[in-house]
Amino acid sequence: MRIIIVGASGIIGKALCRFLKRDHEVIAASRSSCEYQIDITKPDSVKRFFDNVGKFDALVCTVGESAFVPLSEADEEQFMYGINSKLLGQVRLVSTGMKYISNHGSFTLTSGIISEVPGINTALVGMVDSAIEGFVRNAAYELERGIRINVVSPNVLEETYDKFSEAFPGFTPISLERLIPVYRDIIEGVSSGQVIKVFR
Amino acid sequence: MRIIIVGASGIIGKALCRFLKRDHEVIAASRSSCEYQIDITKPDSVKRFFDNVGKFDALVCTVGESAFVPLSEADEEQFMYGINSKLLGQVRLVSTGMKYISNHGSFTLTSGIISEVPGINTALVGMVDSAIEGFVRNAAYELERGIRINVVSPNVLEETYDKFSEAFPGFTPISLERLIPVYRDIIEGVSSGQVIKVFR
Repeated sequence: MRIIIVGASGIIGKALCRFLKRDHEVIAASRSSCEYQIDITKPDSVKRFFDNVGKFDALVCTVGESAFVPLSEADEEQFMYGINSKLLGQVRLVSTGMKYISNHGSFTLTSGIISEVPGINTALVGMVDSAIEGFVRNAAYELERGIRINVVSPNVLEETYDKFSEAFPGFTPISLERLIPVYRDIIEGVSSGQVIKVFR
Repeated sequence: MRIIIVGASGIIGKALCRFLKRDHEVIAASRSSCEYQIDITKPDSVKRFFDNVGKFDALVCTVGESAFVPLSEADEEQFMYGINSKLLGQVRLVSTGMKYISNHGSFTLTSGIISEVPGINTALVGMVDSAIEGFVRNAAYELERGIRINVVSPNVLEETYDKFSEAFPGFTPISLERLIPVYRDIIEGVSSGQVIKVFR
Protein backbone atom coordinates (compact mmCIF):
# COMPACT_ATOMS: atom_id res chain seq x y z
CA MET A 1 0.00 0.00 0.00
CA ARG A 2 0.97 3.62 -0.49
CA ILE A 3 0.55 5.12 2.98
CA ILE A 4 0.77 8.81 3.92
CA ILE A 5 1.91 9.61 7.46
CA VAL A 6 1.14 13.17 8.51
CA GLY A 7 3.24 14.03 11.52
CA ALA A 8 6.09 11.81 10.41
CA SER A 9 8.70 13.83 12.28
CA GLY A 10 6.95 13.37 15.65
CA ILE A 11 7.57 10.62 18.17
CA ILE A 12 4.67 8.44 17.04
CA GLY A 13 5.07 9.34 13.36
CA LYS A 14 8.76 8.49 13.24
CA ALA A 15 8.26 5.08 14.84
CA LEU A 16 5.27 4.42 12.60
CA CYS A 17 7.25 5.21 9.44
CA ARG A 18 9.96 2.80 10.46
CA PHE A 19 7.39 0.08 11.25
CA LEU A 20 5.25 0.44 8.13
CA LYS A 21 8.18 0.71 5.73
CA ARG A 22 8.81 -3.00 6.16
CA ASP A 23 5.68 -3.85 4.14
CA HIS A 24 4.49 -0.63 2.50
CA GLU A 25 5.48 2.46 0.58
CA VAL A 26 5.50 5.29 3.11
CA ILE A 27 5.02 8.97 2.28
CA ALA A 28 6.45 10.90 5.23
CA ALA A 29 4.92 14.35 5.70
CA SER A 30 5.31 17.08 8.30
CA ARG A 31 5.35 20.85 8.54
CA SER A 32 9.00 21.28 7.63
CA SER A 33 11.35 18.39 8.29
CA CYS A 34 10.13 15.57 6.04
CA GLU A 35 10.25 14.81 2.33
CA TYR A 36 6.71 16.16 1.89
CA GLN A 37 5.52 19.38 3.56
CA ILE A 38 2.04 20.01 4.91
CA ASP A 39 0.62 22.49 7.42
CA ILE A 40 -2.73 21.02 8.47
CA THR A 41 -3.82 24.36 9.95
CA LYS A 42 -3.85 25.87 6.45
CA PRO A 43 -6.46 24.68 3.90
CA ASP A 44 -4.28 25.75 0.96
CA SER A 45 -1.32 23.76 2.23
CA VAL A 46 -3.52 20.66 2.61
CA LYS A 47 -4.84 21.00 -0.95
CA ARG A 48 -1.34 21.53 -2.37
CA PHE A 49 -0.08 18.49 -0.49
CA PHE A 50 -2.65 16.12 -2.00
CA ASP A 51 -2.16 17.57 -5.49
CA ASN A 52 1.51 16.89 -5.02
CA VAL A 53 1.21 13.35 -3.63
CA GLY A 54 -1.62 12.11 -5.86
CA LYS A 55 -3.30 8.76 -5.32
CA PHE A 56 -2.74 6.86 -2.07
CA ASP A 57 -4.23 3.93 -0.16
CA ALA A 58 -4.10 5.00 3.47
CA LEU A 59 -3.49 8.12 5.48
CA VAL A 60 -2.52 8.25 9.14
CA CYS A 61 -2.41 11.51 11.07
CA THR A 62 -0.42 11.50 14.28
CA VAL A 63 -0.11 15.23 14.70
CA GLY A 64 -2.13 18.12 16.06
CA GLU A 65 -1.81 20.39 19.03
CA SER A 66 -4.29 21.52 21.65
CA ALA A 67 -4.14 23.88 24.61
CA PHE A 68 -3.84 22.89 28.30
CA VAL A 69 -5.27 26.13 29.73
CA PRO A 70 -7.51 26.67 32.78
CA LEU A 71 -11.02 27.34 31.50
CA SER A 72 -11.32 30.40 33.73
CA GLU A 73 -8.35 31.99 31.98
CA ALA A 74 -8.95 30.80 28.42
CA ASP A 75 -9.69 33.36 25.73
CA GLU A 76 -11.06 33.04 22.20
CA GLU A 77 -7.60 32.40 20.77
CA GLN A 78 -7.07 29.48 23.15
CA PHE A 79 -10.55 28.09 22.40
CA MET A 80 -9.55 28.03 18.72
CA TYR A 81 -6.01 26.70 19.11
CA GLY A 82 -6.79 22.99 19.28
CA ILE A 83 -9.86 23.37 17.09
CA ASN A 84 -7.82 24.74 14.22
CA SER A 85 -4.91 22.35 14.69
CA LYS A 86 -5.79 18.91 16.04
CA LEU A 87 -9.49 18.99 15.14
CA LEU A 88 -9.96 20.86 11.85
CA GLY A 89 -6.45 19.91 10.73
CA GLN A 90 -7.57 16.27 10.70
CA VAL A 91 -11.01 17.14 9.29
CA ARG A 92 -9.28 18.93 6.39
CA LEU A 93 -7.12 15.86 5.70
CA VAL A 94 -10.28 13.78 5.31
CA SER A 95 -12.52 16.25 3.46
CA THR A 96 -9.79 17.01 0.92
CA GLY A 97 -8.04 13.62 0.92
CA MET A 98 -11.30 11.74 0.22
CA LYS A 99 -11.09 12.99 -3.36
CA TYR A 100 -7.63 11.44 -3.84
CA ILE A 101 -7.77 8.19 -1.86
CA SER A 102 -8.10 4.80 -3.61
CA ASN A 103 -11.19 2.61 -3.38
CA HIS A 104 -11.16 0.72 -0.05
CA GLY A 105 -8.55 3.13 1.29
CA SER A 106 -8.51 4.26 4.91
CA PHE A 107 -8.04 7.30 7.10
CA THR A 108 -6.71 6.80 10.63
CA LEU A 109 -6.82 9.86 12.87
CA THR A 110 -5.57 10.41 16.42
CA SER A 111 -7.55 11.74 19.41
CA GLY A 112 -6.47 11.00 22.99
CA ILE A 113 -7.44 9.54 26.37
CA ILE A 114 -8.61 12.97 27.60
CA SER A 115 -11.78 12.52 25.58
CA GLU A 116 -12.81 10.08 28.28
CA VAL A 117 -10.49 10.54 31.27
CA PRO A 118 -10.00 14.10 32.54
CA GLY A 119 -6.62 15.49 33.58
CA ILE A 120 -5.69 18.90 34.97
CA ASN A 121 -7.03 21.86 32.95
CA THR A 122 -8.18 19.63 30.13
CA ALA A 123 -11.62 21.09 29.28
CA LEU A 124 -10.40 22.40 25.92
CA VAL A 125 -8.27 19.31 25.21
CA GLY A 126 -11.15 16.95 25.97
CA MET A 127 -13.43 19.04 23.78
CA VAL A 128 -11.08 18.58 20.81
CA ASP A 129 -10.38 14.88 21.37
CA SER A 130 -14.10 14.10 21.69
CA ALA A 131 -14.89 16.18 18.61
CA ILE A 132 -12.50 14.09 16.50
CA GLU A 133 -14.20 10.91 17.73
CA GLY A 134 -17.71 12.22 16.98
CA PHE A 135 -16.52 13.30 13.55
CA VAL A 136 -15.15 9.84 12.81
CA ARG A 137 -18.25 7.98 14.03
CA ASN A 138 -20.35 10.03 11.61
CA ALA A 139 -17.95 10.53 8.69
CA ALA A 140 -17.70 6.74 8.32
CA TYR A 141 -21.22 6.82 6.83
CA GLU A 142 -20.42 9.62 4.39
CA LEU A 143 -17.43 7.92 2.80
CA GLU A 144 -18.12 5.94 -0.36
CA ARG A 145 -16.14 3.45 -2.50
CA GLY A 146 -15.43 1.28 0.55
CA ILE A 147 -13.29 3.97 2.15
CA ARG A 148 -12.89 3.58 5.92
CA ILE A 149 -12.14 5.98 8.75
CA ASN A 150 -11.13 5.29 12.35
CA VAL A 151 -9.46 7.09 15.22
CA VAL A 152 -6.86 5.92 17.71
CA SER A 153 -7.22 7.32 21.23
CA PRO A 154 -3.87 6.77 22.95
CA ASN A 155 -2.93 7.22 26.58
CA VAL A 156 0.08 9.46 27.25
CA LEU A 157 3.33 7.90 26.10
CA GLU A 158 6.16 6.70 28.29
CA GLU A 159 8.50 8.58 25.94
CA THR A 160 6.89 11.98 26.66
CA TYR A 161 5.41 11.46 30.12
CA ASP A 162 8.05 13.61 31.84
CA LYS A 163 6.88 16.61 29.89
CA PHE A 164 3.17 16.06 30.57
CA SER A 165 3.06 14.31 33.94
CA GLU A 166 1.71 17.35 35.80
CA ALA A 167 -1.39 17.43 33.61
CA PHE A 168 -1.87 13.66 33.93
CA PRO A 169 -1.88 12.57 37.58
CA GLY A 170 -2.73 8.90 37.95
CA PHE A 171 -2.15 7.99 34.34
CA THR A 172 -0.01 4.95 33.55
CA PRO A 173 1.69 5.82 30.27
CA ILE A 174 1.87 3.30 27.45
CA SER A 175 4.84 2.37 25.31
CA LEU A 176 5.33 3.21 21.64
CA GLU A 177 5.90 -0.49 21.19
CA ARG A 178 2.30 -1.14 22.22
CA LEU A 179 0.80 1.77 20.25
CA ILE A 180 2.47 1.46 16.86
CA PRO A 181 1.07 -1.95 15.75
CA VAL A 182 -2.45 -0.69 16.53
CA TYR A 183 -2.22 1.74 13.62
CA ARG A 184 -1.03 -1.06 11.34
CA ASP A 185 -3.88 -3.34 12.43
CA ILE A 186 -6.42 -0.63 11.58
CA ILE A 187 -4.89 0.11 8.18
CA GLU A 188 -4.75 -3.55 7.20
CA GLY A 189 -8.08 -4.44 8.87
CA VAL A 190 -11.70 -3.78 7.88
CA SER A 191 -13.18 -1.68 10.72
CA SER A 192 -14.70 1.75 10.16
CA GLY A 193 -16.24 4.46 12.35
CA GLN A 194 -14.42 3.06 15.38
CA VAL A 195 -12.65 4.75 18.29
CA ILE A 196 -9.77 2.43 19.14
CA LYS A 197 -8.75 3.12 22.74
CA VAL A 198 -5.15 2.32 23.61
CA PHE A 199 -5.19 2.78 27.34
CA ARG A 200 -5.63 0.73 30.52
CA MET B 1 -33.41 29.32 42.38
CA ARG B 2 -32.60 32.04 39.88
CA ILE B 3 -32.31 30.15 36.59
CA ILE B 4 -31.10 31.53 33.26
CA ILE B 5 -32.47 29.89 30.12
CA VAL B 6 -30.49 30.73 27.01
CA GLY B 7 -32.57 29.90 23.96
CA ALA B 8 -35.82 30.73 25.73
CA SER B 9 -37.63 31.56 22.51
CA GLY B 10 -36.96 28.13 20.97
CA ILE B 11 -39.20 25.09 21.19
CA ILE B 12 -37.35 23.49 24.11
CA GLY B 13 -36.58 26.81 25.80
CA LYS B 14 -40.16 28.03 25.75
CA ALA B 15 -41.50 24.82 27.27
CA LEU B 16 -38.70 24.80 29.82
CA CYS B 17 -39.46 28.37 30.93
CA ARG B 18 -43.10 27.49 31.47
CA PHE B 19 -42.16 24.36 33.43
CA LEU B 20 -39.48 25.90 35.66
CA LYS B 21 -41.46 29.05 36.44
CA ARG B 22 -43.69 27.00 38.73
CA ASP B 23 -40.90 26.69 41.31
CA HIS B 24 -38.14 29.09 40.28
CA GLU B 25 -37.30 32.58 39.10
CA VAL B 26 -36.61 32.28 35.37
CA ILE B 27 -34.45 34.64 33.35
CA ALA B 28 -35.47 34.16 29.73
CA ALA B 29 -32.74 35.01 27.23
CA SER B 30 -32.45 34.76 23.46
CA ARG B 31 -30.90 36.62 20.55
CA SER B 32 -33.74 39.07 20.09
CA SER B 33 -37.18 38.05 21.28
CA CYS B 34 -36.87 37.65 25.08
CA GLU B 35 -36.58 39.98 28.05
CA TYR B 36 -32.77 39.50 28.03
CA GLN B 37 -30.69 39.53 24.86
CA ILE B 38 -27.62 37.39 24.23
CA ASP B 39 -25.82 36.29 21.07
CA ILE B 40 -23.71 33.30 22.10
CA THR B 41 -21.61 33.56 18.93
CA LYS B 42 -20.24 36.90 20.15
CA PRO B 43 -17.93 37.00 23.21
CA ASP B 44 -18.81 40.64 23.92
CA SER B 45 -22.52 39.91 23.94
CA VAL B 46 -21.98 37.02 26.38
CA LYS B 47 -19.95 39.24 28.73
CA ARG B 48 -22.51 42.05 28.56
CA PHE B 49 -25.32 39.59 29.30
CA PHE B 50 -23.75 38.31 32.53
CA ASP B 51 -22.86 41.83 33.66
CA ASN B 52 -26.48 42.71 33.12
CA VAL B 53 -28.00 39.66 34.84
CA GLY B 54 -25.59 39.40 37.76
CA LYS B 55 -25.67 36.49 40.18
CA PHE B 56 -27.63 33.34 39.31
CA ASP B 57 -27.96 29.74 40.51
CA ALA B 58 -28.35 27.74 37.32
CA LEU B 59 -27.96 28.22 33.59
CA VAL B 60 -29.49 26.04 30.90
CA CYS B 61 -28.58 26.44 27.26
CA THR B 62 -31.00 24.96 24.73
CA VAL B 63 -29.75 26.79 21.69
CA GLY B 64 -26.99 26.51 19.10
CA GLU B 65 -26.92 25.71 15.42
CA SER B 66 -24.78 23.36 13.39
CA ALA B 67 -24.51 22.52 9.70
CA PHE B 68 -25.93 19.45 7.95
CA VAL B 69 -23.58 19.53 4.94
CA PRO B 70 -22.00 16.65 2.99
CA LEU B 71 -18.37 16.44 4.05
CA SER B 72 -17.23 16.33 0.44
CA GLU B 73 -18.81 19.74 -0.17
CA ALA B 74 -18.08 21.42 3.17
CA ASP B 75 -15.77 24.43 3.22
CA GLU B 76 -13.99 26.24 6.06
CA GLU B 77 -17.04 28.41 6.76
CA GLN B 78 -19.22 25.35 7.20
CA PHE B 79 -16.61 23.65 9.41
CA MET B 80 -16.78 26.72 11.66
CA TYR B 81 -20.54 27.24 11.65
CA GLY B 82 -21.47 24.78 14.41
CA ILE B 83 -18.16 25.26 16.18
CA ASN B 84 -18.78 28.96 16.66
CA SER B 85 -22.47 28.58 17.50
CA LYS B 86 -23.45 25.36 19.28
CA LEU B 87 -19.96 24.48 20.57
CA LEU B 88 -18.09 27.67 21.47
CA GLY B 89 -21.36 29.47 22.19
CA GLN B 90 -21.92 27.07 25.07
CA VAL B 91 -18.24 27.08 26.08
CA ARG B 92 -18.42 30.89 26.32
CA LEU B 93 -21.49 30.66 28.57
CA VAL B 94 -19.51 28.47 30.97
CA SER B 95 -16.12 30.18 30.84
CA THR B 96 -17.68 33.61 31.41
CA GLY B 97 -20.66 32.54 33.53
CA MET B 98 -18.45 30.63 35.99
CA LYS B 99 -17.38 34.00 37.40
CA TYR B 100 -21.00 34.99 38.16
CA ILE B 101 -22.67 31.74 39.23
CA SER B 102 -23.48 31.05 42.91
CA ASN B 103 -21.74 28.39 44.98
CA HIS B 104 -23.25 24.98 44.16
CA GLY B 105 -24.78 26.40 41.00
CA SER B 106 -25.07 24.40 37.79
CA PHE B 107 -24.62 24.65 34.04
CA THR B 108 -26.72 22.39 31.82
CA LEU B 109 -25.79 22.36 28.14
CA THR B 110 -27.37 20.62 25.16
CA SER B 111 -25.66 18.31 22.64
CA GLY B 112 -27.65 15.77 20.60
CA ILE B 113 -28.10 12.12 19.65
CA ILE B 114 -25.86 12.57 16.57
CA SER B 115 -22.86 12.44 18.87
CA GLU B 116 -23.54 8.73 19.08
CA VAL B 117 -25.99 7.81 16.31
CA PRO B 118 -25.13 9.01 12.79
CA GLY B 119 -27.74 10.44 10.42
CA ILE B 120 -27.37 11.66 6.83
CA ASN B 121 -24.52 14.15 6.27
CA THR B 122 -23.88 14.50 9.98
CA ALA B 123 -20.06 14.43 10.18
CA LEU B 124 -19.89 18.09 11.20
CA VAL B 125 -22.95 17.86 13.46
CA GLY B 126 -21.58 14.81 15.27
CA MET B 127 -18.23 16.54 15.65
CA VAL B 128 -19.89 19.45 17.45
CA ASP B 129 -22.21 17.35 19.64
CA SER B 130 -19.33 15.11 20.74
CA ALA B 131 -17.13 18.12 21.41
CA ILE B 132 -19.69 19.56 23.84
CA GLU B 133 -19.81 16.24 25.69
CA GLY B 134 -16.01 15.98 25.93
CA PHE B 135 -15.89 19.55 27.16
CA VAL B 136 -18.44 18.82 29.90
CA ARG B 137 -16.74 15.60 31.08
CA ASN B 138 -13.52 17.56 31.59
CA ALA B 139 -14.83 20.98 32.66
CA ALA B 140 -16.60 19.32 35.61
CA TYR B 141 -13.18 18.94 37.25
CA GLU B 142 -12.19 22.55 36.64
CA LEU B 143 -15.23 24.08 38.32
CA GLU B 144 -14.82 25.02 41.97
CA ARG B 145 -17.21 26.09 44.79
CA GLY B 146 -19.39 23.00 44.22
CA ILE B 147 -20.42 24.20 40.78
CA ARG B 148 -21.71 21.43 38.51
CA ILE B 149 -21.92 20.99 34.75
CA ASN B 150 -23.84 18.44 32.68
CA VAL B 151 -25.11 18.04 29.15
CA VAL B 152 -28.41 16.71 27.84
CA SER B 153 -28.20 14.77 24.58
CA PRO B 154 -31.74 14.65 23.17
CA ASN B 155 -33.11 12.66 20.27
CA VAL B 156 -34.94 14.66 17.59
CA LEU B 157 -38.23 16.05 18.82
CA GLU B 158 -41.70 15.03 17.68
CA GLU B 159 -42.45 18.74 17.38
CA THR B 160 -39.74 19.37 14.77
CA TYR B 161 -39.37 15.95 13.17
CA ASP B 162 -41.12 16.97 9.94
CA LYS B 163 -38.41 19.51 9.27
CA PHE B 164 -35.51 17.13 9.99
CA SER B 165 -36.85 13.69 9.06
CA GLU B 166 -34.73 13.39 5.90
CA ALA B 167 -31.51 13.69 7.91
CA PHE B 168 -32.78 11.24 10.55
CA PRO B 169 -33.97 8.01 8.94
CA GLY B 170 -34.88 5.39 11.53
CA PHE B 171 -35.04 7.76 14.45
CA THR B 172 -38.07 7.63 16.73
CA PRO B 173 -38.52 11.20 17.93
CA ILE B 174 -39.18 11.97 21.57
CA SER B 175 -41.78 14.30 23.05
CA LEU B 176 -41.09 17.62 24.75
CA GLU B 177 -43.09 16.19 27.62
CA ARG B 178 -40.41 13.56 28.15
CA LEU B 179 -37.46 15.91 27.63
CA ILE B 180 -38.36 18.93 29.75
CA PRO B 181 -38.37 17.30 33.21
CA VAL B 182 -34.89 15.90 32.51
CA TYR B 183 -33.45 19.42 32.62
CA ARG B 184 -35.24 20.07 35.91
CA ASP B 185 -33.92 16.83 37.42
CA ILE B 186 -30.35 17.82 36.52
CA ILE B 187 -30.71 21.35 37.92
CA GLU B 188 -32.20 20.14 41.19
CA GLY B 189 -29.97 17.02 41.41
CA VAL B 190 -26.31 16.55 42.31
CA SER B 191 -24.69 15.01 39.22
CA SER B 192 -21.76 16.58 37.40
CA GLY B 193 -19.69 15.79 34.32
CA GLN B 194 -22.50 13.63 32.97
CA VAL B 195 -23.92 13.19 29.48
CA ILE B 196 -27.63 12.55 30.02
CA LYS B 197 -28.97 10.75 26.97
CA VAL B 198 -32.65 11.23 26.23
CA PHE B 199 -33.18 8.76 23.46
CA ARG B 200 -34.37 5.15 22.93
